[in-house]
Amino acid sequence: MNDTWLDKIQWTDDGLIAVIAQDINSGKVVMFAWMNRESLTLTQQTGYAVYWSRSRQRLWRKGEESGNQQKIISISVDCDADVILLNIEQQGGIACHTGRESCFYRTLENNQWVENSPVLKDPADMYNT
Amino acid sequence: MNDTWLDKIQWTDDGLIAVIAQDINSGKVVMFAWMNRESLTLTQQTGYAVYWSRSRQRLWRKGEESGNQQKIISISVDCDADVILLNIEQQGGIACHTGRESCFYRTLENNQWVENSPVLKDPADMYNT
Repeated sequence: MNDTWLDKIQWTDDGLIAVIAQDINSGKVVMFAWMNRESLTLTQQTGYAVYWSRSRQRLWRKGEESGNQQKIISISVDCDADVILLNIEQQGGIACHTGRESCFYRTLENNQWVENSPVLKDPADMYNT
Repeated sequence: MNDTWLDKIQWTDDGLIAVIAQDINSGKVVMFAWMNRESLTLTQQTGYAVYWSRSRQRLWRKGEESGNQQKIISISVDCDADVILLNIEQQGGIACHTGRESCFYRTLENNQWVENSPVLKDPADMYNT
């Protein structure tokens, strides 16, 4: 197996890379998270986004609980090779754990963060809590 | 002056927040960088993106040398309040210091990073080197 592409990445001291997920259909940036070498490898191999959860310190197969998987359309890297941009198809149309399409659901207006999009699904119906 | 919106941000231990810049016209994600409180304040006040350069440890008024400023259309924050998404108008149509529209100009194909977009301007003509 050819891992040269992984070796070109400038991992952080913690062995991570920043990852932006953009929905290929809406064009919206829906999420930001981190990957380590294993999760990026799995993302490429399985065709679905697998992140590294820094808070839980374990692999995070996006949608493992909610069903809102992210199907990989393309994987790009930036000029410094320290940020990944994923073009994805968002299963269920919900990327955010709050039940919204995108995690970026608050926009600055008159010095206040104002919600710009609705909750599409109650998180209580997405996760076993 | 009302700084409450700044206080809602979850700054890193280094006092930074991750920032994604998306071109409002093309919909492309063009850049990823960092801001501190001062640079985010200046971004809002001036209407143009001001980042914090981690490598140079100083404010980085995007386009200060190249002229490729980023006019702010909107500033959004994610669910955890630790990532900013900027919708911008990219002056000059070039966000990347390599002279390309976007920093994400390499896409994975058959285990290789393949360039997906051309150099629009010679960096030597963009910067005083």
